[in-house]
Amino acid sequence: MPQLLRVQNFTVSSDGYGTGIGQTLERPFGHADPGKLHAWAFETASWPGRTDGEGSRGLDDYLVRDFPHNIGAEIMGRNKFGPQRGPWEDHEWQGWWGEEPPFHTPVFVLTHHPRPSFTLSDTTFHFVDGDPAKVLDRAREAADGRDVRLGGGVSVVRDFLDAGLVDTMHVAVAPLELGGGERLWESSDELLDRFHRDIVPSPSGVTHHLFWRK
Amino acid sequence: MPQLLRVQNFTVSSDGYGTGIGQTLERPFGHADPGKLHAWAFETASWPGRTDGEGSRGLDDYLVRDFPHNIGAEIMGRNKFGPQRGPWEDHEWQGWWGEEPPFHTPVFVLTHHPRPSFTLSDTTFHFVDGDPAKVLDRAREAADGRDVRLGGGVSVVRDFLDAGLVDTMHVAVAPLELGGGERLWESSDELLDRFHRDIVPSPSGVTHHLFWRK
Repeated sequence: MPQLLRVQNFTVSSDGYGTGIGQTLERPFGHADPGKLHAWAFETASWPGRTDGEGSRGLDDYLVRDFPHNIGAEIMGRNKFGPQRGPWEDHEWQGWWGEEPPFHTPVFVLTHHPRPSFTLSDTTFHFVDGDPAKVLDRAREAADGRDVRLGGGVSVVRDFLDAGLVDTMHVAVAPLELGGGERLWESSDELLDRFHRDIVPSPSGVTHHLFWRK
Repeated sequence: MPQLLRVQNFTVSSDGYGTGIGQTLERPFGHADPGKLHAWAFETASWPGRTDGEGSRGLDDYLVRDFPHNIGAEIMGRNKFGPQRGPWEDHEWQGWWGEEPPFHTPVFVLTHHPRPSFTLSDTTFHFVDGDPAKVLDRAREAADGRDVRLGGGVSVVRDFLDAGLVDTMHVAVAPLELGGGERLWESSDELLDRFHRDIVPSPSGVTHHLFWRK
């Protein structure tokens, strides 16, 4: 079995932005409201934060519940870990993901600034420098035969796309405009030279764009 | 976590038939061509019979690869096991599923005629009599906290629907007419009193009907 590099449940606005303007500790998505952007996922029965036994079990739920399957490691950009820039100053603060991060695998955080690895519950964060291919090699080794998730943000997804390393990608296009921020694409047609694509409108209002390598 | 009873990847013709007329040993689907009916699944990268590393990884693949996830037992009708009717005469013949059945869990085959359990690879077939609720209790116990798959055929799915025991159901409607055989429905609207429904057309030509209990 090949070890795929997969982007999963990555949500952008109808104008292609994955994050708004002005990321801070309090606002990881800048001016974008993550509750609105990701509402499609929060409404599903399989959303990890859901404890009420309710939620939809239709199309969106299939996509949400696929998240952990056959994933052995994640690669994420520094901005998905936290809002700091430059050398790490506060080692006490251990990222946006709480005491029980939803990854349950090794996570490789891209940064030019070294920092010791640490473990929260069953997720270990490693801080790595290097080009995409080299980081992917390390993540594949840690994934022990399983696939690697490319977690984002936008600039990380773009870097790995540009390096030709992404095997499959699921982008959910939410029915709202952001007008600014970090942009994944102007149109998903930009990827059709390299990927097959299914476009699947969900009854919830988002449109799922599913890509796999040609 | 509740233990759901789930119908997965159950394919019917556009006029609602899951099996054609005249099931025999050589033709498990009667006059229907299973290759045409299930073509949507065979084309995916995750179809278990695929060994060429090819296949689509879009919408249809999500549905196919969800098949084993969190499933701990299957319930199937006798006609999904084999073409015999009445008391078992040939105990040597061990069903349509070969030496490596694709279930990998206990399977409960509904029959009025007793027969000893047997194991092929990591699938054990049990032969059980009783009403749907009683058989589901047994399968739930065997599933050890995981969900139970209701594998069909048509009459078994209908019996469990009539008994109000089905929690989620995925039916793929293929773009071909059969004109006769075992019919699941005249229209999937028949289930809307009891289920939510997403209707999702796939670029491959099938339309996925996804139900979850109200």
